[in-house]
Amino acid sequence: MPDDKLNSWEARADAHSFYGFTDMPTVHDRGTVVLTHGKGPYVYDTQGREYLDSNSGLWNMVAGFDHAGLIKAAQDQYARFPGYHAFFGRMSDQTVMLSEKLSEVSPFERAKVFYTNSGSEANDTMVKMLWFLHASEGNPQRRKILTRVNAYHGVTAVSASMTGKPYNSVFGLPLPGFIHLTCPHYWRNGKDGETEAQFTARMAAELEETIAKEGADTIAGFFAEPVQGAGGVIPPSDGYFQAILPILRKHDIPVIADEVITGFGRTGNTWGCETYDFMPDAIISSKNLTAGFFPMGAVILGPELSDRLDAAVEEIEEFPHGFTASGHPVGCAVALKAIDVVMNEGLAENVRTLTPLFEAGMARLAENKNIGEWRGKGLMGALEAVADKDSKTPFDGSLSVSERIANACTDQGLICRPLGQAIVLCPPFIMTPAQMDEMFGKLEKALDKVFAEVA
Amino acid sequence: MPDDKLNSWEARADAHSFYGFTDMPTVHDRGTVVLTHGKGPYVYDTQGREYLDSNSGLWNMVAGFDHAGLIKAAQDQYARFPGYHAFFGRMSDQTVMLSEKLSEVSPFERAKVFYTNSGSEANDTMVKMLWFLHASEGNPQRRKILTRVNAYHGVTAVSASMTGKPYNSVFGLPLPGFIHLTCPHYWRNGKDGETEAQFTARMAAELEETIAKEGADTIAGFFAEPVQGAGGVIPPSDGYFQAILPILRKHDIPVIADEVITGFGRTGNTWGCETYDFMPDAIISSKNLTAGFFPMGAVILGPELSDRLDAAVEEIEEFPHGFTASGHPVGCAVALKAIDVVMNEGLAENVRTLTPLFEAGMARLAENKNIGEWRGKGLMGALEAVADKDSKTPFDGSLSVSERIANACTDQGLICRPLGQAIVLCPPFIMTPAQMDEMFGKLEKALDKVFAEVA
Repeated sequence: MPDDKLNSWEARADAHSFYGFTDMPTVHDRGTVVLTHGKGPYVYDTQGREYLDSNSGLWNMVAGFDHAGLIKAAQDQYARFPGYHAFFGRMSDQTVMLSEKLSEVSPFERAKVFYTNSGSEANDTMVKMLWFLHASEGNPQRRKILTRVNAYHGVTAVSASMTGKPYNSVFGLPLPGFIHLTCPHYWRNGKDGETEAQFTARMAAELEETIAKEGADTIAGFFAEPVQGAGGVIPPSDGYFQAILPILRKHDIPVIADEVITGFGRTGNTWGCETYDFMPDAIISSKNLTAGFFPMGAVILGPELSDRLDAAVEEIEEFPHGFTASGHPVGCAVALKAIDVVMNEGLAENVRTLTPLFEAGMARLAENKNIGEWRGKGLMGALEAVADKDSKTPFDGSLSVSERIANACTDQGLICRPLGQAIVLCPPFIMTPAQMDEMFGKLEKALDKVFAEVA
Repeated sequence: MPDDKLNSWEARADAHSFYGFTDMPTVHDRGTVVLTHGKGPYVYDTQGREYLDSNSGLWNMVAGFDHAGLIKAAQDQYARFPGYHAFFGRMSDQTVMLSEKLSEVSPFERAKVFYTNSGSEANDTMVKMLWFLHASEGNPQRRKILTRVNAYHGVTAVSASMTGKPYNSVFGLPLPGFIHLTCPHYWRNGKDGETEAQFTARMAAELEETIAKEGADTIAGFFAEPVQGAGGVIPPSDGYFQAILPILRKHDIPVIADEVITGFGRTGNTWGCETYDFMPDAIISSKNLTAGFFPMGAVILGPELSDRLDAAVEEIEEFPHGFTASGHPVGCAVALKAIDVVMNEGLAENVRTLTPLFEAGMARLAENKNIGEWRGKGLMGALEAVADKDSKTPFDGSLSVSERIANACTDQGLICRPLGQAIVLCPPFIMTPAQMDEMFGKLEKALDKVFAEVA
């Protein structure tokens, strides 16, 4: 690093940060981007550069980076009651109110809520709940967890085991008993000549065979994101959930919808399971739940799981699980406001208004001969870069094509996310049509530049 | 529940909460305590009742429940930049500054920091880091984790596996490879006629034997709280860390200090490892880190682990781990202020001033014939209830003696924590001597009442 950079923000960041989910060659080459503030969907760094964040932070800052109502909700609650837990039969009034609200807006006729600090913790908690429940009901051998390749359920050792990405092998994960079914991505995983309906039927048959092979009485639960998010924005093939749900029901396997990304508006409805018309037994929520203004996750238990778990707890008098900040009053006050902002202050409506523009923009960029497909739902989408469109052949990995596209965007003041060889867009719900034009315009230039270099 | 209670806060809480770490018979009998606000070390419920919280919330609200400086730090940062992540080589300026501060106040000559949302996530992350490190260095078989009985390291499936409490068996935990050594609690675990020095030597011999039996080259790391906290406030026997550290060093087993409770002042120094005079390889921090005003955990890596992990990451270009709210700007701003408040605004000093009063109060209550011992360090302590003092015989479990004591305290407006058959006190650092008198006075009445009932 040059001498004049020794006391720079970049050098200070580098000296004391152990970076996660960060391409280190990019940091070494370009330095860390240190951000100071935001305005609407834009963020600003220490050098005054402006970036349109088409990632909504990390899917979550759906109301942008300076939403006045959310700021006030947080500030007011700090003045009122800035912290408490939810152990020992005590909790804050905000916690009680948020649980009522979550029950009300959930797809369930009634629900019970358990709070965590993240989606990772919520999925990890749900696994513990299922292990506890099955053991309590006399089935301690029901411990295996079914998820899918390209699923993303978090990073604790157990939620990372549920995540179906090869990078977890560096930790020696998944742990035993975490089974990853085929990713229902028709474009990539469909066989030559196979129709989408045939593909979906094959996914269902694989599930049936897996359950038979493993033994239904060894399986604790099935977890699925309605649209796979951090695995690459992968909507299920047509009819996927309708094909697999009856199989899971037949074998009494609880179905958990991981709505960390899809919950609260991303796909155009409050829940992704509404968009795909299926009813899970429990919902995992996080991210949009607080619009990114506070770390929070929630396990929302539908009536049957809730009743069975209540009965199991009564027998041992205490459920021995909980996080210090579970149900933090500020987080709950922020979530109450965020739900209101998304559902009642025009954000969910704006998602529905913007979706046709978003789809048109994606479709236009997908005409590029090096974009294999665009895919997505609502305001989440991905453009898959390919060296050859007809054969769907990816670029050579050493070209780091998606990182180069993302960096070319950053140079123009646009943040988007490289993921495998795809570029992911998940804009904040407050975006305007003009900002969407800016996003697609800058991305198009970056695609042209990088594809010209690597062609 | 009576009809007039149907719309009460208690009923509303009960309808939609899945309770964690809560004695359900107590909730059924007495209802949930729903809290609305706080003042200094006191909290207030929906019925206007006042409680002196001798638990500091959950060890963490050390600056009380309305600290003006902390409220302002949070409010100001909400106005400035209310949320961002720390992925993809981007992070907020507050995150950079907090990492510098944590490196500065750590016992290490230099440090790198990784953020999480809780102590559970930080311990879980540290385990993943060790698994990754050993595999990268050619030792993928180094996966076993050593902790102690009565250790508390969290509730994710892996951190719960590290936690040495029998209640985790309801989840089928610990997972394989998590080994719990004997709890270094001389009063309870010392043998007849064994001196404390002999007991400590026996703990060290057990460690040496365990390493020999398991194979040093199968062990990933050793985790220890300087004072075991949620396992019952158990300080180590005299010379414990001095006896075991050389053994761990000899076998190249990384030593992780879980300072979630002890960090930032609780034992009278910034770190518990200072109080007990040993140098770990990494520190796990949470709770006091933000004085409970924000969910946050941190892995603070000392120079050697930091360098080795950096080298391992360089080989794969990216450490595939991180939480959405890792390094949240509001959490970092709050932590910067909390560290300043504890270290420079008189709180740490007040811990040292209050400690002799605390010890005197505990010693006085421990004269009770049904208190077997008091134990603790700084401002954390426990009174162990016993049916017979000489033989150290506990009460019959069905008497729920500690829950009854805690409920008798609640009736007088004092919150303290039942833990096994002990009562735990961990007052906020802002307590006054008069408030400490109130705490001990109310607790004494509760002890007298309950011991008279069960005698």
